[in-house]
Amino acid sequence: MFEKADVLLPKCWPVIRVDGRGFHRFSDSHGFKKPNDDRSLHLMTKAASKVMEDLKDVVLAYGQSDEYSFVLNRNTTLYNRRESKIVSTITSLFTSCFAFHWSEFFPTTPLQYPPAFDGRAVLYPTKRILRDYLCWRQADCHINNLYNTVFWALVQDAGMNKNDAQKRLKDTNAGGKNEILFSQFGVNYNTLPQLYRKGTVIIRPPPREPAPSGGAVERGDRDGTDEKVPVLLTLNEDIIRDNFWVSYPHVLEGEDE
Amino acid sequence: MFEKADVLLPKCWPVIRVDGRGFHRFSDSHGFKKPNDDRSLHLMTKAASKVMEDLKDVVLAYGQSDEYSFVLNRNTTLYNRRESKIVSTITSLFTSCFAFHWSEFFPTTPLQYPPAFDGRAVLYPTKRILRDYLCWRQADCHINNLYNTVFWALVQDAGMNKNDAQKRLKDTNAGGKNEILFSQFGVNYNTLPQLYRKGTVIIRPPPREPAPSGGAVERGDRDGTDEKVPVLLTLNEDIIRDNFWVSYPHVLEGEDE
Amino acid sequence: MFEKADVLLPKCWPVIRVDGRGFHRFSDSHGFKKPNDDRSLHLMTKAASKVMEDLKDVVLAYGQSDEYSFVLNRNTTLYNRRESKIVSTITSLFTSCFAFHWSEFFPTTPLQYPPAFDGRAVLYPTKRILRDYLCWRQADCHINNLYNTVFWALVQDAGMNKNDAQKRLKDTNAGGKNEILFSQFGVNYNTLPQLYRKGTVIIRPPPREPAPSGGAVERGDRDGTDEKVPVLLTLNEDIIRDNFWVSYPHVLEGEDE
Amino acid sequence: MFEKADVLLPKCWPVIRVDGRGFHRFSDSHGFKKPNDDRSLHLMTKAASKVMEDLKDVVLAYGQSDEYSFVLNRNTTLYNRRESKIVSTITSLFTSCFAFHWSEFFPTTPLQYPPAFDGRAVLYPTKRILRDYLCWRQADCHINNLYNTVFWALVQDAGMNKNDAQKRLKDTNAGGKNEILFSQFGVNYNTLPQLYRKGTVIIRPPPREPAPSGGAVERGDRDGTDEKVPVLLTLNEDIIRDNFWVSYPHVLEGEDE
Ligand SMILES: Nc1nc2c(ncn2[C@H]2C[C@H](O)[C@@H](COP(=O)(O)OP(=O)(O)OP(=O)(O)O)O2)c(=O)[nH]1
Ligand SMILES: Nc1nc2c(ncn2[C@H]2C[C@H](O)[C@@H](COP(=O)(O)OP(=O)(O)OP(=O)(O)O)O2)c(=O)[nH]1
Ligand SMILES: Nc1nc2c(ncn2[C@H]2C[C@H](O)[C@@H](COP(=O)(O)OP(=O)(O)OP(=O)(O)O)O2)c(=O)[nH]1
Ligand SMILES: Nc1nc2c(ncn2[C@H]2C[C@H](O)[C@@H](COP(=O)(O)OP(=O)(O)OP(=O)(O)O)O2)c(=O)[nH]1
Ligand SMILES: O=P(O)(O)OP(=O)(O)OP(=O)(O)O
Ligand SMILES: O=P(O)(O)OP(=O)(O)OP(=O)(O)O
Ligand SMILES: O=P(O)(O)OP(=O)(O)OP(=O)(O)O
Ligand SMILES: O=P(O)(O)OP(=O)(O)OP(=O)(O)O
Ligand SMILES: [Mg+2]
Ligand SMILES: [Mg+2]
Ligand SMILES: [Mg+2]
Ligand SMILES: [Mg+2]
Ligand SMILES: [Mg+2]
Ligand SMILES: [Mg+2]
Ligand SMILES: [Mg+2]
Ligand SMILES: [Mg+2]
Ligand SMILES: [Mg+2]
Ligand SMILES: [Mg+2]
Ligand SMILES: [Mg+2]
Ligand SMILES: [Mg+2]
Repeated sequence: MFEKADVLLPKCWPVIRVDGRGFHRFSDSHGFKKPNDDRSLHLMTKAASKVMEDLKDVVLAYGQSDEYSFVLNRNTTLYNRRESKIVSTITSLFTSCFAFHWSEFFPTTPLQYPPAFDGRAVLYPTKRILRDYLCWRQADCHINNLYNTVFWALVQDAGMNKNDAQKRLKDTNAGGKNEILFSQFGVNYNTLPQLYRKGTVIIRPPPREPAPSGGAVERGDRDGTDEKVPVLLTLNEDIIRDNFWVSYPHVLEGEDE
Repeated sequence: MFEKADVLLPKCWPVIRVDGRGFHRFSDSHGFKKPNDDRSLHLMTKAASKVMEDLKDVVLAYGQSDEYSFVLNRNTTLYNRRESKIVSTITSLFTSCFAFHWSEFFPTTPLQYPPAFDGRAVLYPTKRILRDYLCWRQADCHINNLYNTVFWALVQDAGMNKNDAQKRLKDTNAGGKNEILFSQFGVNYNTLPQLYRKGTVIIRPPPREPAPSGGAVERGDRDGTDEKVPVLLTLNEDIIRDNFWVSYPHVLEGEDE
Repeated sequence: MFEKADVLLPKCWPVIRVDGRGFHRFSDSHGFKKPNDDRSLHLMTKAASKVMEDLKDVVLAYGQSDEYSFVLNRNTTLYNRRESKIVSTITSLFTSCFAFHWSEFFPTTPLQYPPAFDGRAVLYPTKRILRDYLCWRQADCHINNLYNTVFWALVQDAGMNKNDAQKRLKDTNAGGKNEILFSQFGVNYNTLPQLYRKGTVIIRPPPREPAPSGGAVERGDRDGTDEKVPVLLTLNEDIIRDNFWVSYPHVLEGEDE
Repeated sequence: MFEKADVLLPKCWPVIRVDGRGFHRFSDSHGFKKPNDDRSLHLMTKAASKVMEDLKDVVLAYGQSDEYSFVLNRNTTLYNRRESKIVSTITSLFTSCFAFHWSEFFPTTPLQYPPAFDGRAVLYPTKRILRDYLCWRQADCHINNLYNTVFWALVQDAGMNKNDAQKRLKDTNAGGKNEILFSQFGVNYNTLPQLYRKGTVIIRPPPREPAPSGGAVERGDRDGTDEKVPVLLTLNEDIIRDNFWVSYPHVLEGEDE
């Protein structure tokens, strides 16, 4: 009775974004490699995958740094679209999976203290606006990663102190930073792992096309062995341009607009 | 911009209740003792205590079964009173502590899968209505515990099957259940541990009274050694009657109404 | 501070629907003609038109019976999209215009008491769903009007009492009602005024096409006299089928989806 | 389904404040006397009284300038506490009464155009905080009225132009303004009508005390004639100090806190 009704507006795409609480300190305490620690990034993706395996209405997850965004089907009826239940359950489940699988990714680094995440819901009325949101997160990944890559090169490889490195970068644009990386460290930014530059997107595989009618072959089992359709596809691709969405039209499909 | 403003109404007491997701299955999977598993109850309280140590604006926590309620100071400014941030962070932190401390309480039972909790906020305008909420949760503890105690006595000790036990209890009131326990199992319900019958309430200790003015004794250090004020008090007391609130007036204190 | 932030989700189409408070009694007290009183319907439309003249972000209004729905531009920034301000102001303005223009439409019937309306906001994420809403209101108009038309024919023309008329109609479908009207009263429902059958839709006229480039004629002033573009178009058309929307594409236009 | 649930938090005192839309222009267009026009103030109070006669759950209304605040019983179930219905209906009804009774107060000034009001809900958890709200509105009345009184004395009586009057007042405090009024215009601010200085508060009369038991006198009819209990009390009193609330304890009474 004192609990507010908090149903998410029907037909909008709900996005739940979780973000590590105080991960500046958490990454320090656990010796994360700078600017990118593969163990942490893969653990984040493991936890996100577990969330997607559990909650079938998540159609896509996108992660970078200490955050992951979960896109729910616009027609989801999960918990009757109650915002608190959805946000708290996804955040809790993600947190729990992060802790549960920690030692698989950090076998020699014990958890020093319990990691926590905040969570929030955002609602997008159309596919276009939803895609704008995802573009924003991937652009954020790119900008931060470029900055961090040069910054830590200056500090770790060129021995600059942090203050000087910051000053050095303050007035450079993207081109300037690429230039420093290339001329001073021989690094072509565009050859760095897509994991760092693009973040990670997780989707479900496209549905199998139905077997040709009249054909003798069993659906999903053409050679008589058990099918091996992966449960999830984990990609480090550009999701800003149309290409990704053209390749995987099923992700946001459905009677639209 | 697509994120809704969700500030909790000023001056109201926010209560965040977390509840185990699917703990029927979780308790089975981990061999919880029925009707009460001390390990689980103590782990819940450990996790709740860690939340209170971290978040100073929690003035009281009350737990029973697979749930814990956290009462925030009515004037809290935690996360600017943003509901999603508060609910998701408390739920995440509680979950994480539950997983983190699991092995201390279940040393011989590994976690089978990541436990999760849902969380929600409820808002109470006055102390009286807040106390009514806590009464409701403690009464719920009592009712469920009495039922479960007799039910499992019938099943485990008297060898009844579950269906018959359920039928036997369907039309009994509290008195009838007490009677069965006493006459058939020699158990006086009121002598069972308060932990089971009352649940657990965690508060902060009362503030030290100031040393008498002009007195020579150091504040909080009467015998010259370091003070040993416990950080938290963990109690299994009745919180329905006035007695508890008279004993610990500081818990809900402050300029009120 | 105790006032809740209530910003309408960006990009969604806000619809404000006002509905006469207790118009069952109000129509009786003022001798409304049954089932349709032209004076009342035209007064409603006058009031709605005044709202549209005042608030430029209303792109369409649809009215029937004692209700009017105002569709705001999906990108409106009216009152910074604050729901209470928008709903209360539109409802107040509509009410005030209804009272203000009363005597123009009811010259011989003085207002017996102050008429009031309730108001509410509904939010539609896409054009398609917005159109579904409008279809729902127009279908409601049709169903009620068909029922009321037959009902009052039975009562007023055939002298049936209200109870019997109601019973007579209880199990008839639309076809059955048309049949009664035609066979018993010689009325072809489809020839009744569209005002009654379709309700009223108000839109702004399409923007003038730009003068042919290189032409000497002033924009909007081809023959040298002042332009006479009507400020609003008032129509009694079907808005369920595509035709209306094809004819007036500017109404819901704009970068979409 | 696309309409949001918007139930007001139980037990809190809902306050609905309506405020004239663009009354700067409206008061000009209708020749309101400056700084206070009795006709307008009394019309506002008439409209507010009509709202209170219609809606029994309004326990108090406070008005000044172009605004009125309606305090609902904390336990009201009006429209199931749906915020939009309550706010829009009260705002609509107030507007309608304002227009309906206009000519009683402005017999020689026809309405030039339809007046409108905005409306909003605010929620107060306790009596104390509710009273703080009312203090704030009455203090606002005082501050504005003192300023406007001196300002228009300077302009209308001393022939100053508006710019100079504004400059003259910019750095004066309340004392300074009182001083100008007294020394320059011989006006003691505290003798001006309480209507201007305090605004107007409307309450219901206290319930009759029950007739002494055993007494022969009929309830509410001591002298054998029909009772003449006024339906509403309209006062221009200080509601900041305790005195008002001590005199009329029934207004906010009820099981509290
Ligand atoms: N060394 C290292 N640090 C990382 C990595 N991924 C994330 N971090 C750290 C860098 C940032 O300090 C932090 C993420 O920034 P946020 O804006 O989320 O701030 P933070 O989590 O400290 O505070 P918050 O509680 O979210 O407000 O996590 C990584 O792969 N390696
Ligand atoms: N054996 C045992 N079970 C417990 C204990 N504490 C809680 N549980 C179990 C009994 C119930 O099945 C369950 C709590 O009931 P809930 O109403 O919260 O349901 P559940 O968590 O299954 O579903 P939910 O996701 O909350 O809707 O947890 C315990 O100490 N021992
Ligand atoms: N005679 C007559 N009555 C009309 C006309 N237009 C509307 N009404 C009446 C018929 C209905 O009793 C009433 C509209 O029904 P509603 O469902 O809005 O109910 P009502 O306004 O009585 O209650 P409400 O305050 O909206 O819950 O208005 C008309 O043209 N002629
Ligand atoms: N002359 C005169 N003016 C009054 C009287 N009462 C109110 N007003 C005018 C003075 C202010 O310009 C206006 C009230 O100020 P507001 O802050 O409500 O502004 P206004 O209604 O113009 O705009 P709004 O739509 O509320 O934002 O009403 C009166 O008794 N006499
Ligand atoms: O990056 P975000 O969205 O988490 O934004 P923020 O600056 O961290 O702000 P907050 O977490 O307080 O919403
Ligand atoms: O006991 P609660 O409050 O969790 O209530 P419930 O019956 O579990 O319902 P829900 O969790 O769906 O609010
Ligand atoms: O026809 P509506 O939408 O006004 O629906 P209702 O049955 O009148 O209900 P309410 O006005 O209480 O929302
Ligand atoms: O005096 P208020 O409360 O009406 O405040 P305002 O400055 O007019 O602001 P708004 O009407 O936009 O809330
Ligand atoms: Mg953040
Ligand atoms: Mg973070
Ligand atoms: Mg982050
Ligand atoms: Mg539950
Ligand atoms: Mg549970
Ligand atoms: Mg439970
Ligand atoms: Mg209605
Ligand atoms: Mg109506
Ligand atoms: Mg209606
Ligand atoms: Mg205002
Ligand atoms: Mg105003
Ligand atoms: Mg005002």
